[in-house]
Amino acid sequence: MKVHGKAYRSIWPLEAGKTVGIIDQTCLPHRFVEVELRTLEDAAVSIKDMWVRGAPLIGATAAFGVALEMARDPSDASLDNAWEVLHATRPTAINLRWALNDMRSCLSQLPLEQRADAAWQRAIEISDEDVACNESIGKHGLKLIEEIAAQKSPGDTINILTHCNAGWLATVDWGTATSPIYHAHNKGLKVHVWVDETRPRNQGAGLTAWELGEHGVPHTLLVDNAGGHLMQHGMVDLCIVGTDRTTAHGDVCNKIGTYLKALAAHDNGVPFYVALPSSTIDWTVADGLKEIPIEERGGEEVAWISGETAAGDVEKVRICPPETPLSNFAFDVTPSKYVTALITERGVCAASKVGLAGLFPERANATA
Amino acid sequence: MKVHGKAYRSIWPLEAGKTVGIIDQTCLPHRFVEVELRTLEDAAVSIKDMWVRGAPLIGATAAFGVALEMARDPSDASLDNAWEVLHATRPTAINLRWALNDMRSCLSQLPLEQRADAAWQRAIEISDEDVACNESIGKHGLKLIEEIAAQKSPGDTINILTHCNAGWLATVDWGTATSPIYHAHNKGLKVHVWVDETRPRNQGAGLTAWELGEHGVPHTLLVDNAGGHLMQHGMVDLCIVGTDRTTAHGDVCNKIGTYLKALAAHDNGVPFYVALPSSTIDWTVADGLKEIPIEERGGEEVAWISGETAAGDVEKVRICPPETPLSNFAFDVTPSKYVTALITERGVCAASKVGLAGLFPERANATA
Repeated sequence: MKVHGKAYRSIWPLEAGKTVGIIDQTCLPHRFVEVELRTLEDAAVSIKDMWVRGAPLIGATAAFGVALEMARDPSDASLDNAWEVLHATRPTAINLRWALNDMRSCLSQLPLEQRADAAWQRAIEISDEDVACNESIGKHGLKLIEEIAAQKSPGDTINILTHCNAGWLATVDWGTATSPIYHAHNKGLKVHVWVDETRPRNQGAGLTAWELGEHGVPHTLLVDNAGGHLMQHGMVDLCIVGTDRTTAHGDVCNKIGTYLKALAAHDNGVPFYVALPSSTIDWTVADGLKEIPIEERGGEEVAWISGETAAGDVEKVRICPPETPLSNFAFDVTPSKYVTALITERGVCAASKVGLAGLFPERANATA
Repeated sequence: MKVHGKAYRSIWPLEAGKTVGIIDQTCLPHRFVEVELRTLEDAAVSIKDMWVRGAPLIGATAAFGVALEMARDPSDASLDNAWEVLHATRPTAINLRWALNDMRSCLSQLPLEQRADAAWQRAIEISDEDVACNESIGKHGLKLIEEIAAQKSPGDTINILTHCNAGWLATVDWGTATSPIYHAHNKGLKVHVWVDETRPRNQGAGLTAWELGEHGVPHTLLVDNAGGHLMQHGMVDLCIVGTDRTTAHGDVCNKIGTYLKALAAHDNGVPFYVALPSSTIDWTVADGLKEIPIEERGGEEVAWISGETAAGDVEKVRICPPETPLSNFAFDVTPSKYVTALITERGVCAASKVGLAGLFPERANATA
């Protein structure tokens, strides 16, 4: 998508085996900083320190990290070391592990002298596959937006609410939840996005609002508390969110607060869609509420908020007394009954075992 | 309630006709600053600049403002001027208008030489009436908490979620939503409060967490997004919130985000109570969703967050790009069907026309 009018991906190859470009997302929305990764260590730091974030982008960055290392030393020991170093950066990230395993299984079969080129090519492929997957999600989701547009008067704005950042910044391009939105906007549909700020880390305010603004998509930022009121008053036509993990029965684990928006959507007859690459479906889990452990993060994310002062400095401020006890659950689970449908790279399906098995019979049967 | 171990009200008479003490709440939670009001102008500034806030406290402050002015000049012109100056500070505050009308109707009948003393006495009475009203709310609400405690194992903590600040800082003492909690805590019940930070103005983080902490009530601050997850996992036994305006049919207008918590409570079988002095019931309104206009405030409250830096300075930071469009609805309406019961100074009743008419027949009949 566009930044300052120029098409960007969130990661891009520069010189084969030598340099990879990324955006340091920790500086957003206050500074736009491009960084060149030159070594395995650069790639590891960029993941660990969250210069890159979002499961698909982490996977792609790890793949390029392996490729940079293979250009330096293509030995088996080096390959194993790259796997370990990168895996340790964010050990719970499923795409990270997947990308590392993919790279190792491709490369370990090859003679040493072919590994650097093959690694570079495979890292590019992994990036391109993510883009293609998200583009498919966007095309399928676009149809849903067009159906809703067809029910409105010509020229009426289609209002879409989203939570957190399931945008192009979290993937290699297009995003998941944002892909149908970008497709609709690029096609000339009059869309407007309500962006939840998404406390405590404010990914909506800092990333989603930024990327929509840069691409020219009309949007408005609001506090997480406000979506229910908007839906009560007919100001939201549909919701689209992403997901970190979807169960085989269609329960959706996503950023904390998603569940509250799904309840409001249900209460007001607003369609609530979840966009996801099938790689985030956990076929081994049925009941998301009972089976998915929810990460508790440090309370300082609740107490301290980062932003830019009037003087232009990036600063953190504490919003509560220093001794206040804090709680910080990072995700919640939206039961499938509150999800209107899932938007995947293979199409749209009911948030149910039957719905998912219909689109992914080979996966559903393998774990049945 | 207590501050630094000492019992406080949010406003207190110092020297008759001369000085009134308040807390500058704009400095909380980072600084505890007591201020002496000496003139009508002091009182007006304290309301306008939100050193005092919360409908009951604004009313009491206005009453003392009139009393300070009567000591200086008890003429009719002065009384009318005091009414105008104070009313202009926050013209939509119902308690402000009520307190000013009450003072004027009391004083205008009296000879000039009696007005200063009478005004001072009446201002004290208005404060005391608010305290008594909130104490009654607390006693009635305490029974609800005790009923819930009786269903749990002895020694189990009773977890109560609240939104915004309907605490003693918003009233003269006890608060509304917090009054049952303070009563339970003071009686030795093992209560713990989940405090919603309450974006955009963070009254939960800055005021509720502070006042509960100072009084020694166990509590934990969390983002507004998290309450649904807690309720899904049995971590909330009941919710108690305040209200700015309750309709004759029991719909509740309160700080934005209240509705989302009520939905989650309903979805998980958690009782959702609203505590209110009957002065906030609007007997002329039936359907809150259709009839109550919702204030839209400036977007800068969403974009800019105030807090204390690590260096100890109070600073504002902007969390989004400078050009991001912003929306800031201040309140929402929770339909009565999601309200388990209303806690008033006369007792607990169903959130319905019948329920309210049962407790307040004289008011319900007057507007029927």
